[in-house]
Parts: sequence; C-alpha cells; structure tokens
Amino acid sequence: MKKRVAVIGAGPSGLAALRAFHSAFQKGAEILEIVCFEKQSAWGGLWNYNWRTGTDEFGEPVHGSMYRYLWSNGPKEALEFADYTFEEHFGKPIASYPPREVLFDYIKGRVEKTVVTEWIRYKSPVRNISYDEASEKFAVTVHDHARSSTYTEMFDYVINASGHFSTPNIPSFPGIEKYAGRVLHAHDMRDALEFAGQDVMVVGSSYSAEDIGSQCWKYGAKSLTLSYRTASPGYNWPENWEEKPLLSRIEGKTCFFSDGSSKDIDAIILCTGYIHHYPWLADDLRLDSSNRLWPLGLYQGVAWTKNPRFFYIGAQDQWFTFNMFDAQAWWARDVILGRITLPSQEEMDLDCLEWRAREDKNETAKDGWEFQGAMIQRIIDQTDYPAFDIGGVCELFYQWKNHKLDNIMTFRDQSYKSVMTGTVSPPHHTPWVKELDDSMAAYLADRNAIAAE
Amino acid sequence: MKKRVAVIGAGPSGLAALRAFHSAFQKGAEILEIVCFEKQSAWGGLWNYNWRTGTDEFGEPVHGSMYRYLWSNGPKEALEFADYTFEEHFGKPIASYPPREVLFDYIKGRVEKTVVTEWIRYKSPVRNISYDEASEKFAVTVHDHARSSTYTEMFDYVINASGHFSTPNIPSFPGIEKYAGRVLHAHDMRDALEFAGQDVMVVGSSYSAEDIGSQCWKYGAKSLTLSYRTASPGYNWPENWEEKPLLSRIEGKTCFFSDGSSKDIDAIILCTGYIHHYPWLADDLRLDSSNRLWPLGLYQGVAWTKNPRFFYIGAQDQWFTFNMFDAQAWWARDVILGRITLPSQEEMDLDCLEWRAREDKNETAKDGWEFQGAMIQRIIDQTDYPAFDIGGVCELFYQWKNHKLDNIMTFRDQSYKSVMTGTVSPPHHTPWVKELDDSMAAYLADRNAIAAE
Repeated sequence: MKKRVAVIGAGPSGLAALRAFHSAFQKGAEILEIVCFEKQSAWGGLWNYNWRTGTDEFGEPVHGSMYRYLWSNGPKEALEFADYTFEEHFGKPIASYPPREVLFDYIKGRVEKTVVTEWIRYKSPVRNISYDEASEKFAVTVHDHARSSTYTEMFDYVINASGHFSTPNIPSFPGIEKYAGRVLHAHDMRDALEFAGQDVMVVGSSYSAEDIGSQCWKYGAKSLTLSYRTASPGYNWPENWEEKPLLSRIEGKTCFFSDGSSKDIDAIILCTGYIHHYPWLADDLRLDSSNRLWPLGLYQGVAWTKNPRFFYIGAQDQWFTFNMFDAQAWWARDVILGRITLPSQEEMDLDCLEWRAREDKNETAKDGWEFQGAMIQRIIDQTDYPAFDIGGVCELFYQWKNHKLDNIMTFRDQSYKSVMTGTVSPPHHTPWVKELDDSMAAYLADRNAIAAE
Repeated sequence: MKKRVAVIGAGPSGLAALRAFHSAFQKGAEILEIVCFEKQSAWGGLWNYNWRTGTDEFGEPVHGSMYRYLWSNGPKEALEFADYTFEEHFGKPIASYPPREVLFDYIKGRVEKTVVTEWIRYKSPVRNISYDEASEKFAVTVHDHARSSTYTEMFDYVINASGHFSTPNIPSFPGIEKYAGRVLHAHDMRDALEFAGQDVMVVGSSYSAEDIGSQCWKYGAKSLTLSYRTASPGYNWPENWEEKPLLSRIEGKTCFFSDGSSKDIDAIILCTGYIHHYPWLADDLRLDSSNRLWPLGLYQGVAWTKNPRFFYIGAQDQWFTFNMFDAQAWWARDVILGRITLPSQEEMDLDCLEWRAREDKNETAKDGWEFQGAMIQRIIDQTDYPAFDIGGVCELFYQWKNHKLDNIMTFRDQSYKSVMTGTVSPPHHTPWVKELDDSMAAYLADRNAIAAE
C-alpha cells in the first residue's frame, strides 16, 4: 500500500506541494499517492479571479479576494520561483509590477510544465479532517459537488494549504446597522468603477486600504478618506485624500472619528484584514492565530507540533510568497519522505518559542522581512529546493518600501533586478496611473512598435 | 435516560418546534431533552436583521436575507399564529402590512410568552449530522464559537429547521465578469438608498424582484428594469419601470436581452432565488430539491421517509408561513412522542408520490395555496394545534393577489379580516409609498393624535 498524502487547496501553496512531490518522484523518490482537494472548479486559489461575492454556484463561501484592475503591489522579482523564472515564461524580460492576469499566466506556465494536475479533485470542499490515533491515519471527509455526495478517505499525511486571506475580519461600529450608504469588506471589492464620483472611505492602514484606495482614486472616486486605528500609513496621498483616526460612530451618511471630526461618506470599504478560518479541522489540528509572521504551533513554520504528520503551508503573514510556499512545500515533502527527521514535540515547541521571541523583537518592516528570510533560509538549507539569494530579495523589499514612500502612485513604474537571472526589468510602456486597461494583451503589447507603424 | 431531540436553527421554524414541545410538557407529556443549535448570536432566523453580508464575525456565511425598510409582502392575517394573535400582542388591532421590526416584535412576544429559550445554544453552527444504525442515534457535531471548540453529542431525533432562503442561487451571464457596474444577489441587498439616482435592474420575476424593485423605486432609483426568464409578473409598474426578457449578455455597462434590445444599467440585483444547502447533513439525510410546494422524500411534508426519526420544518415553498411551521412542528412532536404512528417507508413514499402528482396538477397560484392549505389541514387534524380557518386564509391570499394586480404600489394600504379574531384591520395612517420610516415607533404612532395636539 502506497502512503497517501492529502493536500487541501490548489492555490499557490497547494500547487507548491504538488510540484515538490512531482520533483522528488521524477528524481526517483519512493512514490506516494497524492490527492489535492480543491473547492473551486479550477486551480489557482486567490489568483483565480471570480466576479462572484458571498457564496458561489454551489453555495460555498467565495474564496477569491481579488478585484479587477489589480496589479502586483510588490515587485515580481520578490516572488519569482527559483525553478521557473519570469524570463523563461515570457521569453523576454518584462516590467516589475504586472497586473493579475499576467502573474496568473506565469503561475499557469509553471503549473503546466511541472505540476501533475490530475492529482487535483475539483469542486471538492473538505468538510472534516480528524486524526485517528489507533490507525495513525487522518479521516478526510469531502463533498463532491459534481455528484452531490460526501465521502471519507484515509490519509497518512495532510498538508493544509487553504490560505488565510479569504475569510474577512469584519468589525462593527456604532450606527453601522443604519448607515445610509454602502458598506463592504475588501474581500467583496470587485470593480473600482462602482465608486466613481463617490466619497469613499477605506478603514484600515495596510495593503488592502492603500491599494483599494489607490484603485478607487485612479478610477475616478471623488474623494478618499483613510481611517486608521493605530498609525497613519505615512504615504504622500494625492490632494483629494484625507487621513482620519478610527471611525467611532455613524449617523445616516455621516461618519464620526475618534478626534471628534466628521465627514459624509457614500461607501465604506472595510480593509480590516482576514481571519484564520478552518471549519473543517478538528480542534487538535486547527491553527488559531492572528495574522503574524510566527504563529505558534508550527515547527519551522510548517509542521504542526501537536501532530507532525500534519502541515500548514503559507499560514504566516507574508513578505515572501511563492518562493516561500515552495520552500515550505519542499521541506514538508522531505519530512514525509523521511529525509528530514523531526525532534521531539517538546523540542519543536521550544524551538517555536525561540522564534516567537525573535519575532517579538522585530521593530521595523525590515526586521520583518529579514526574520522571514531567515526562516526560509533555514528550511531551504535542508532540502534540494534551488538556493536563491534571499538577502537579495530583502534588498528588493527595501527598495520597494522606499519607492512607495517616495510616491505611492508611481512606485509601480520602478524597475528591479531579478536575483534569479540578474536581469534588470525594463520600464513599463505606460505609467500605472495612466493605464486603465489591466489585460495581459495591453501589458505585453509593444507600444513603441505600434506607435511606429 | 431521557430521549434527546436536536433542533437545528432558532428561526420561526425552530422556535415552532420548541414551542410545540413546551406546550406538550406543560400538559403533562413525557419530558424529553430538547437542544436547539443556532448559528447566530440570537434567535429569530431571517427576522434577526443583520447589516453584514458575506460572512459574519465568526467567518460563518451570513444567514440574513432581509433588507432595511422591508415591510411584510403579504397580509399579516395570513401568517398569524393560532395560539397568539396580533391583537393579543399589541393590545389593539393594527394595520395589515407591518414592517419587519413590528413583525419581529410580534414573534418576540410569543417567544417570551411560550418558548423556553434556555434550550437554545447560540453561536453554534452545526458541522455534521450522521445517523448511526447500531445505536439508532444521530451524531450531531457542533462548533461552539464562544469556546472555539467542536464537540459531538448523540440524539434520538433531529428536526432540521434551518430554512432554505439563505444560500443564494446565483446564475452567470456572458460578460458579467467584466460588467462595469455593481452586481449583487438579493441576499446581499441591505439599503435601497444605495441605489438612489441609479438605473437599476432586477433579474427575476418573483417576490424578491418585485419587492426589491419597488423599494429601489420608492427610495429614489432613476429607473427600474425587470428582466424575466419565462413570464412577466403582470403588474402595472410605475412610469420609470420597464420589463425586459432574459438578460443574454453584458458589455461594459450595457445589458443585452434575448429580444435583441439593450439598456445601460448601473446596478444588477439578481433576484434569482435560493438553493437548498445543508452542508452539515450526511448524504442519506440531505434533501435535494428545487424550491417547490412538494419536495419528494418528506412524508406529510415533514418526516424524512428514509429515516423518519429525522424531520424538516419549512422545507417547502411557502404560501403559508408561521402557522404552517407551527402545524409541522406539532406534527413532528407528536410523531416523536409516539402519539402518531407512521406507516411503512414504502407507504410513506407512495403517499408522497400521490401528493407530488397532485402538486403537478396545480395550474394557478390559487391551486398552489389551496394545495398547501390541504397539506396543513391534514396534519393539524392529527394534533392538538388550535384549528383555524385555513379556507379563510386562502381567501385572504386571493384578495391579496387581486390587490397587487390592481396596484403593486398601493396593495399594502389594504385591510384584511383576521381568521383568528374576526377583526378587520384598521387602515394604516400613511400610504406605504409615502412612509419612508419603517421603525416600529413610526408604525404604531397615533398620527391623528399627534396632528391634533
């Protein structure tokens, strides 16, 4: 009997796991049976854009949090796969901040080249996972929407790669139940054009707030207000932007803030983050954490110390993304293949506490990405995932952060050097603020050639 | 050991079950242990208005489909409890079409008088229910959000009263993924003011479409378009309304219809109904049906023929509501108490097929409510639920339908006679189209007295 591994989710994290196993099998490793359960009708996770909000055609909560006109909010050089470069995929260097469709095409290229998608069962939300001590196996209960039926299968290992940016954290505010405008969470944002001509408020001070605010601004919102809880994001906003401290109450369309000021607002977009939500996991397998770089309970950020046959990929807050998921997938794979031996639960928990103490000492953003870089370096060193210049990526984050501070509306026009190929990306043909078309065709078009014709 | 009954959901259907058992226990019946699991933080089901859309503060799908300014869309006399009249609750006769807050207060009065709410466990979504043949018990797995933990308890009977107007049916249309306006399902509708000044389209021809369209019209939409699949609703709409056949495709903000015509639309509200969605039920307990008066598999519309220790309340399409839930709850209770003996599964299934054949012969709306009335009469005759004049309620439906055909914007100004008390309701102090305030205070205010002061 081949050992069986369940992978939950076929987004970037789950696909990394499939890729890791395929890579090992190709090189002669013992063959295991891999089954990936995916709720959606296609792989891609968050990158699989969905116009729907709320629930999908099967009544399942919509996974997607992406919106139209979304461009990468960090340089593509920081998320490049070490084993499949942008230059390999596109056949030429491309600019540093591609829109969603272009990034999705890149992911797709790597999937088609290196992932066995036959391992994926689509339209298959997982309903329950529990561990049976006696058989040392996990019972995975899955609903198959194609057949309207539920079944349970047993697995020796489980890799939970479901992501944690899909279930919104939605705080309440006094008076919101009678607010006379529109209120939505960033998770349900789809088209900035809906807010053209409106006085829009984003509540929050992190990526969603700055990016959704910038989108609404770019596509014609009348004014933007950013309400923050603890600290101003610190950017030089355009003239029709205003920062306010935390929203304290609402009357009709009037929003009141903690400094006593008020403003009439047409639409409130709650950019208040996401919660870890794993309703399919038994209590003793379920991670319960805020969004942070070092959630407790995950040895090396991956193995569930209470039961190290169970793994999480991508469960931490993220500076690094695709290449971190790869590193984690390779490491989990090697634990499963017996190439890496885990210490005792006590030692793992002690190790986790040391890393948590280290995380607690982080003060700046730079501390954060260097901390995460160190975590990744540590696990990469234990596997055959292609080594890459993690310090070089940290340097990219530093440049990126400064470009944002220089000008939050032009940072996407900057170029960066790939740590994988050494190529400096060419500038894009159109400044981000002027490019309303986010299609791959528009992005990859040779505008100079068109102009010269 | 007392027998144990699980009730899923504390909305009108679940509360009816709690009420039914309490009534029997008060009259000296054998005491069973009743546990009601409720996902929300309070009882009331759909009537428990929630400003949230998508997922709630715990990440669970929002149950509520009601919106602000919702008034009853049928006469209150058609849904009056036989054991607790409107006149008893309000101490005086009130008009026939109360807004949500007034109806909720009525439900609340009956709950406070007759329901043991201590039986309800809040913030407790049910994750799984399966039947164990050996022990003849149901394993009910529940997540307790207050303690962030999941547990399983065994029950002898289960009454599923979770409702089926919470999980939206959301069809797709060519081009909708790039529609340059706002698209939402009726389930996510909250405030008609959001659509003031806009060209709004409702897709669908049933209650949601006519009521949400009327709301948007009343609160200042620029124009209304109603797109129907099979048949026009047949009402005399106001001047700025237009009917169109089915939406066939979308380009930018332009909607094209199956007759080749087109129209620019700012917001599309999909009033396309709801699906039966019971992800917590094992295959052999799960009803799979369209929204209709006689779903197969439910003996007398209530007992699950495959396993008649399992019951559904309110699982059919509804002309009758609160008093039908009561009738079903009383009947399920009496089966559980052994007062009603069920025939063999074969006989139950045959009986169901006969009723389905009867349903298939229905041609008019009148056939529909008379069919449902006959179903209710049959089960009421088997219990001690107070008999009421079901034919009289059917007559109310007939008057109501004609009032709507006369004028869809004034039918709520009509009065009806209670079959419970014989009282004809007084006219309301303000026509529905002119009353923008839907609060209970405004509704119950004595406007003449105020004017005379």
